[in-house]
Amino acid sequence: MSDSIENLLERRAILGPAYRLFYDEPLFPVQGEDVWLTDHTGRRYLDAYNNVPVVGHCNGAVVQAMSEQAQTLCTHTRYVHDAVLDYGERLLAHFPKYLNRVMFTCTGSEANDLALRMAFAVTGGQGVIVTANAYHGVTHLLAQLSPSLGAIGDFVRVVQPPLTQSEDAAQAFAQEIRAAIQSLQDAHIKPSVLLFDTVFASDGIFAPDVGLLGLGIDTAREAGLLIIADEVQAGFGRLGSDWWGFVSAGFKPDIVTMGKPMGNGYPLAGVVAKDDLVQKFADTGRYFNTFGGNPVAMKVGMAVLDELEQRNLPEQVDTLGETMQEALLGLKDLGVVEVRGKGLYWGVQLAATDTQTAAERVKLVVNEMRQQGVLLSQCGPNMDTLKIRPPLTFTQQHIEILMQTLSAALQKQCLVNVK
Amino acid sequence: MSDSIENLLERRAILGPAYRLFYDEPLFPVQGEDVWLTDHTGRRYLDAYNNVPVVGHCNGAVVQAMSEQAQTLCTHTRYVHDAVLDYGERLLAHFPKYLNRVMFTCTGSEANDLALRMAFAVTGGQGVIVTANAYHGVTHLLAQLSPSLGAIGDFVRVVQPPLTQSEDAAQAFAQEIRAAIQSLQDAHIKPSVLLFDTVFASDGIFAPDVGLLGLGIDTAREAGLLIIADEVQAGFGRLGSDWWGFVSAGFKPDIVTMGKPMGNGYPLAGVVAKDDLVQKFADTGRYFNTFGGNPVAMKVGMAVLDELEQRNLPEQVDTLGETMQEALLGLKDLGVVEVRGKGLYWGVQLAATDTQTAAERVKLVVNEMRQQGVLLSQCGPNMDTLKIRPPLTFTQQHIEILMQTLSAALQKQCLVNVK
Repeated sequence: MSDSIENLLERRAILGPAYRLFYDEPLFPVQGEDVWLTDHTGRRYLDAYNNVPVVGHCNGAVVQAMSEQAQTLCTHTRYVHDAVLDYGERLLAHFPKYLNRVMFTCTGSEANDLALRMAFAVTGGQGVIVTANAYHGVTHLLAQLSPSLGAIGDFVRVVQPPLTQSEDAAQAFAQEIRAAIQSLQDAHIKPSVLLFDTVFASDGIFAPDVGLLGLGIDTAREAGLLIIADEVQAGFGRLGSDWWGFVSAGFKPDIVTMGKPMGNGYPLAGVVAKDDLVQKFADTGRYFNTFGGNPVAMKVGMAVLDELEQRNLPEQVDTLGETMQEALLGLKDLGVVEVRGKGLYWGVQLAATDTQTAAERVKLVVNEMRQQGVLLSQCGPNMDTLKIRPPLTFTQQHIEILMQTLSAALQKQCLVNVK
Repeated sequence: MSDSIENLLERRAILGPAYRLFYDEPLFPVQGEDVWLTDHTGRRYLDAYNNVPVVGHCNGAVVQAMSEQAQTLCTHTRYVHDAVLDYGERLLAHFPKYLNRVMFTCTGSEANDLALRMAFAVTGGQGVIVTANAYHGVTHLLAQLSPSLGAIGDFVRVVQPPLTQSEDAAQAFAQEIRAAIQSLQDAHIKPSVLLFDTVFASDGIFAPDVGLLGLGIDTAREAGLLIIADEVQAGFGRLGSDWWGFVSAGFKPDIVTMGKPMGNGYPLAGVVAKDDLVQKFADTGRYFNTFGGNPVAMKVGMAVLDELEQRNLPEQVDTLGETMQEALLGLKDLGVVEVRGKGLYWGVQLAATDTQTAAERVKLVVNEMRQQGVLLSQCGPNMDTLKIRPPLTFTQQHIEILMQTLSAALQKQCLVNVK
C-alpha cells in the first residue's frame, strides 16, 4: 500500500462529514473472497455483516458475466434487448403470479422512491405509514419517511413494529395502523401507503411468521392503502427458501421493492408490482432510468440467480438459520436479552450492565469482534442489538468461528454486572 | 439470436407501458464497439446519440479496470479505501479550487436529489426555479421539478431558458428569475435553488458563452438562492476543453451534479460542492449510498478520466465542434431553422412544411437516419429539434458519415414545401 491508514483518514476530508466509518479502528479491506475480507496488513476477517455480496465477495461467475457483457454491449432500455426480458422473467418466476410486472433501477432508494410514486399515482393520496425506526433510503422523499435518519415529513405517520409473534402483537399492530390512518385523515392527508421492511432491520430485526401482520394489513387495505413490502434487506433468500420476507410472513403485497443483494455489488435494484398499478402509473408519464435494466446489470442479476438457484443457497439458509438460532440462544447467560431473526439475518439484543448501557456494550462487542477477526455491526432504535447478516455462502464452519468469537467477546467485554 | 424482434416486443409487456422504445422500427443492438452499434441482423450503426459511452462503447481499458477491481474487492464507503479518495481527488482536480468536496451516488437522479437535499438543508427553504422544459431526473422530488415529464410541484417555478447569446436574452433571463422569486415569495415559499442543465438539453440544446447567465445568477444569489449546475448532460468534456458547461458559461455554481458519462455505462454519478455546504448538510444527518463510491465504481471512473485525459478527448472536441457547427450550418437550405450547441452536443431545429409540423419532420428524419444506419434522436419543448450527441471518440470521418446521411435524409424527407 502506498498510503498509511492515517493518511487515508485525513484524505477522507474530501468526502465531507456526512460519510461515516465502521469501528473505532476503521477497516481498510484490499481483497474479498467468498465470506472473507483481507485488510491492508494481510489479515483475514470473517464477514458476518455484508448482505450485498450475497453469493460471496468477488464471486467468479458473477464477475465473469459482468465482464463478458461489458465487453459486448452496455446500452439501455430504449433499445430492444433480450437480457432485460430474460432476467425480468426469471426474477418474476420467484414471485406469486399476480406480481407480474418489473421495473429496474440502480439502488434500493430508487426502487422505494419509484414504488411510492406509483402508489401516490394510483391512490391519489400521499399519506405514508412506516415503522418507528424505519430506514427506506436517501432520496428527499425517502429521508422524510425514514425516522432512523431524523425528522419525518408531515405526510408520514409511524407505528411500532411488531417484534413478537403473538396475537396481542398482531392486534396492537393493527391498532397502531388504525390510529395512524385516523391521524392522517384528521390532518386532511389521504392515506396512500403502508410501507415496511419485511425483516424490520433498522427497528431491531424480526422476521414475522404467518399470522402476525395480516390483521394490520387488512386494516390498511380496507382504508384504501397499498401495501409495499421493502425486501431490500430480506429478499433473495436471506430468510431461507421462502425467498422473500412477505412469503414467510404470509401476506400479499401490492408492490415489492428490492436492491442490495440483487447484483452482488453491481448497482442493481427493482420494483415488482401488479400490472394494473404499473398501468396507472404509466398513465401519468413515461419512466426511464439511464443505467437501470442495462444488459450488464441484467447479466449480473442472472448470474446471481444462477448461483442462488444452482447452489440451493436459500434452502441451505433454512438449515443454517436453525443452527444460528440454537447457537445464539445458547448465549443467553452472557447478557443477551433477546435473539430475533431468521435464516441468515439475526439481531442479538444485549442487556445493560451497572456501568454500561446496552448500546455501549454492543459497540464494545462489535469492536472486539473486529479485533478478533469477525465483522458484524449494530442496529435497533436504541442501538442495543448486534446485527449479523453474512453472505449466503456462509457454512456451518463459518457459524462455528462466528459463535466462538462472539461467545469470547461477550465473556470478555460484558459478562460482569449484567443488570 | 434465439428470439425474433416481434417476440421480444411482446415479452416487453413485463416491463409495463411506462417504458418506451426509440424508432418506429425499434433497434435490437447486440454489440457495441467505439462509436458503432451492431444489431441482431449484423448491421452496423454509427452512434451519434449515446453520451453515456463517452470514451466509446465497450472501451477496453474501462472494462479491464472494472473486471480487475471486481475480482479483487467491491465493498462500500463505511470501510477505508484508497480508490474513493484517489478518484475523488482526480475528479476535484478538474474543478475550480473552491469546489472541494465530492459525494458519490449511482445515478444522475440520485445526484440531483442529493444536491437539492443539501440546498434545502443549507437555505432552510424549498422553493426551486428550473427552466420551462427541464428534465432533472426520476425521483419523486425531481419529477416534480422536471416540467418535461408533466405537472410540476407547487414549490417549483419555471423560467424560459435563454437560448440566444445576447444582452437582451441575459436581461430577460434575469427578469424571469426575478419574477419567479417574487412568485415563490408571494406564495410564502422560501426560494432556495436555481437549478439548470448547463446545456439546456431538454429545452432544445444551447451552450451559453460567458455573459449570458451572469445577471440571472447574480439576481438569484442576491435573493439567497444557491446555484446548482446540472452537468449530467454537459459535463466531462462534451462541450470541449472547458470540461464543464458552467466553465464555458463563466459562472460559479455552489453545487455541481454529474452522472451519465462518468462511468461510461457503469452506474456512477456524484455531487461536487463547497465544503461549508457539505458541512451544513452533514449537520442534519449522515449519508450512505450502498453502491455509491464502491471500489469498482471508482476504478471505472478513473479509467474514464485516464481515457479522456490521455487521449485529449475534450481538446479534440473543440475542433470537432467547429467542424460540426460549420457542417450543420451548411444544411440551412434544407429546412433548418436554427443550429444550437457546442462541442459534440448539437440541436438542429427544423421548420414545419405545408403538410408537416416540425416535430413530425424531425421524427421522420430520425427514423430515416436509423434506416440509413445513423443513430440520433429528438428533443425540445415542441420536439422540433434533432439531438446529436455522440461518444467523444467521434472523429472527422464519423462527422462526414453523419453529415452525408443527414443531408440526404433532410433532402429525401423534408425538402419540399418548407414554410
